[in-house]
Amino acid sequence: MGALRLPALTSFFTVRSPAPAIKQRLRLPLRRPFSTAEKVVGAVVDKEKERVITPRSEDFNAWYLDVIANAELADYGPVRGTMVIRPYGYAIWEAIQEYMNVKFKETGHSNMYFPQFIPYSFIEKEASHVEGFSPELALVTVGGGKELEEKLVVRPTSETIVNHMFTQWIHSYRDLPLMINQWANVTRWEMRTKPFIRTLEFLWQEGHTAHATAEEAEEEAMQMIDVYTKFAYEQAAIPVIAGRKSRVETFAGASTTYTIEAMMGDRKALQAGTSHNLGQNFSRAFGTQFTDENGQRQHVWQTSWAISTRFVGGIIMTHGDDAGLLLPPRLAPLQVVIVPIWKKDNEKTGVLTASSSVKETLQAAGIKVKIDDTDQRTPGWKFNFYEMKGVPLRIEIGPRDVSSGTVVISRRDVPGKQGKVFGISMEPSALVAYVKDKLNEVQSSLLERATTFRDSNIVDVYSYNELKEAIAQGKWARGPWSAGDEEELKVKEETGATIRCFPFEQPEGPKKCLMTGNSADEVAIFAKSY
Amino acid sequence: MGALRLPALTSFFTVRSPAPAIKQRLRLPLRRPFSTAEKVVGAVVDKEKERVITPRSEDFNAWYLDVIANAELADYGPVRGTMVIRPYGYAIWEAIQEYMNVKFKETGHSNMYFPQFIPYSFIEKEASHVEGFSPELALVTVGGGKELEEKLVVRPTSETIVNHMFTQWIHSYRDLPLMINQWANVTRWEMRTKPFIRTLEFLWQEGHTAHATAEEAEEEAMQMIDVYTKFAYEQAAIPVIAGRKSRVETFAGASTTYTIEAMMGDRKALQAGTSHNLGQNFSRAFGTQFTDENGQRQHVWQTSWAISTRFVGGIIMTHGDDAGLLLPPRLAPLQVVIVPIWKKDNEKTGVLTASSSVKETLQAAGIKVKIDDTDQRTPGWKFNFYEMKGVPLRIEIGPRDVSSGTVVISRRDVPGKQGKVFGISMEPSALVAYVKDKLNEVQSSLLERATTFRDSNIVDVYSYNELKEAIAQGKWARGPWSAGDEEELKVKEETGATIRCFPFEQPEGPKKCLMTGNSADEVAIFAKSY
Repeated sequence: MGALRLPALTSFFTVRSPAPAIKQRLRLPLRRPFSTAEKVVGAVVDKEKERVITPRSEDFNAWYLDVIANAELADYGPVRGTMVIRPYGYAIWEAIQEYMNVKFKETGHSNMYFPQFIPYSFIEKEASHVEGFSPELALVTVGGGKELEEKLVVRPTSETIVNHMFTQWIHSYRDLPLMINQWANVTRWEMRTKPFIRTLEFLWQEGHTAHATAEEAEEEAMQMIDVYTKFAYEQAAIPVIAGRKSRVETFAGASTTYTIEAMMGDRKALQAGTSHNLGQNFSRAFGTQFTDENGQRQHVWQTSWAISTRFVGGIIMTHGDDAGLLLPPRLAPLQVVIVPIWKKDNEKTGVLTASSSVKETLQAAGIKVKIDDTDQRTPGWKFNFYEMKGVPLRIEIGPRDVSSGTVVISRRDVPGKQGKVFGISMEPSALVAYVKDKLNEVQSSLLERATTFRDSNIVDVYSYNELKEAIAQGKWARGPWSAGDEEELKVKEETGATIRCFPFEQPEGPKKCLMTGNSADEVAIFAKSY
Repeated sequence: MGALRLPALTSFFTVRSPAPAIKQRLRLPLRRPFSTAEKVVGAVVDKEKERVITPRSEDFNAWYLDVIANAELADYGPVRGTMVIRPYGYAIWEAIQEYMNVKFKETGHSNMYFPQFIPYSFIEKEASHVEGFSPELALVTVGGGKELEEKLVVRPTSETIVNHMFTQWIHSYRDLPLMINQWANVTRWEMRTKPFIRTLEFLWQEGHTAHATAEEAEEEAMQMIDVYTKFAYEQAAIPVIAGRKSRVETFAGASTTYTIEAMMGDRKALQAGTSHNLGQNFSRAFGTQFTDENGQRQHVWQTSWAISTRFVGGIIMTHGDDAGLLLPPRLAPLQVVIVPIWKKDNEKTGVLTASSSVKETLQAAGIKVKIDDTDQRTPGWKFNFYEMKGVPLRIEIGPRDVSSGTVVISRRDVPGKQGKVFGISMEPSALVAYVKDKLNEVQSSLLERATTFRDSNIVDVYSYNELKEAIAQGKWARGPWSAGDEEELKVKEETGATIRCFPFEQPEGPKKCLMTGNSADEVAIFAKSY
């Protein structure tokens, strides 16, 4: 009912402008659905089988899993809660890495690599750290056939081992700031998992820095949350709200946690990146000291900050629609797909030659492009397939286009005829300019759409009743807050919402706490979250 | 005795051409030596202390560890046998990754990511695989505070989990070839470890492919060993010998293993990369089948291939000398260091301005360059420091250079005056051309030198006695071989040498097995190895 149907293999051959793909049934080659874990039996796997993408409005979670399976972003691993990141999903992660690596180096950080096995005793050294992480640990107890004397933690995060090493490398103020980053896998024994969003093992980068003063550490923590914010807006087209976590939600071991919070398509919040001012918590626990300019021994001031493969999930859930994935051009592994269209054999050569030449033109201009020229699929099938894969632009080239020296270009984000423009010149400089322009338009329009969606789903509240009502409607509530941890936990218990952050952008004027009526310095944002 | 001494801080200020650094004592800020594991005590760490790089000829292993510690390539992790890869060492690995990633994609492979936790039962499915790997496994037995029902293996390699997934993704011949790669950490519980060469955890890439025919798999395995060979010669300047492993030395689970073998500075062999034709061994164990064009179910034919952070160790041990590290320009994180030299304050501005402008010129030309303009160190100290770090070229700029519009350029690989050229024009196009030229010269000369060294240390042998003599002299022995596994193991027991490979390049003409006197088709190379 209401699902998306892709035209059958034979019926769509001549259609130039398929109806918008919404509310049809999507027929695709069998993909093992993400939501079932049993092995596909050899005997049935080679048949064409119907696959359905559940409409987003009907069941957001089922839609999410269907998109991941059909777009071949990821698959379940054999161990409960683990995930195989497939090439198309991994390419999005690579695009994130590529951007971040440049920014990290520009801001003075070097990549390096720490071992993933951490002596259990390290985790116990920082009191709130062990409290936060010990329920989630995976432990290696046997190595090389022997029971180990000290069990090893598979890193859930690296503050402890980083401090162990920093203590050996940092001697004087001349060794500071020490600013490093690592790209690594981390393991957290999560009970409720969800591909990309929360898995037993995930990929991330973790930055770790040590500074001579509290001010420098604070500046660094703020700088990095700013790098993440810019990335979210400019690359991922996700209008995150950046701010400070409440004490309850602060990272285990941090003095202050800064966060970027993104609103998903179901209006739940996703914590998409965090930057922690660790103060001297770890340096005191590990004795990480330096000799200052006056010859005095001081503990260093530290930060750590991370984004992970969770961000890929955030992109899916921010932009995707009933037709499937929708990728922001700047992170899309494939920005343009060319679908050549011919009926008769004598048309084929001309169409394919023109398609290749268009491909080369775009590729030379740095655009990520491919041709799908298989004749085992109809153009209509391909249209829907690449829409489902979220490719921002489609170029169609048929015999009439070849004779007129033009192409047809369709935008993924504007369905049907509205998003389709005929008669774009094939002339290289004109075409490249047009395509780049359109990619930028798609990029901006995704951000605009997500921003409008976000803003229409944040309600300003001034009392606990208003807050409860907003949350019950599935929205985010923004209201003045100066109450304590206990009241915050009460809100969570009663509404399911938590304080996502005290946003950096604050309304002016005097405020009264929505819970206590006392004067408040800041508004907080409350929402249900992943 | 005989160790390398770096000029004291104050004594070297005006010297333009320090004596070759050989056989002096190297004085550097305290670096925690790699070879001691105790924690540096806070109270003593801020002093300047003498550090010694053991001469290579005196104790190759001690030299290797000293270079790694002093050049800050790596450090010991807190868990026995683990290694922290520090920024300078990691940057070499990043240069390897950057090159390889392009080659892998050019040859049709996509990156992806498999979970590192593998159910123990998987490892047991392929008989020789479990035999090869079970002594080296790290096992996770506790997760989230609970004893696990099935213990998990921390991946030592991923053939098993890859096949588990391939079985679900491969249905028909249209899904083949399936060609993927992952960059990942792997864990092998090694008893005798050595930084970069053999550590409990290391970083690598592992390619995995599945094909419809035995021929395609063989072609792929050969293609990838060829990619590694080209990389070794052209980027790392290491004249590896590529060939086939003997049955005894074949990877656990492979039908054939191809290898590249490098001769280190102590003439021990290092297996620097391998490519395996897995035949149908894993596809039979995991039921990885496809329906061929005739509708018949067939097992896929597979390959896997890997290089690891071990390669960084290979680079150190191939090119390094008594002065420290010597990096091939194409993989050097820093290709050129600029050392500005001034005595009087009124000279400083001119020298620093010229240095900056030279830096910008080179940087704009894509050359990796930095200026060391600290005045806390003498030029002489810096000369030796960057020689120890293996930077291929050094540019000196003093007041006289500024007035003549020239610079002095020294090659790391040619010590002393011989490697030093005065009066190179600062004019950008001339300077860039000169520097690029010199970098290429260093690159070729490293390869040439290593090739000469290799060739003068391979002895053609025709009898077991000759083999024993060659090995006893520390050389590689190359001789005709058609004897069995038992004889091969006897050679190992009696000489310590193993068959490194049957090289692809074979002498022509009839041959007689050096051990049995029977006719032989091929020569094998025997050597002691890491």
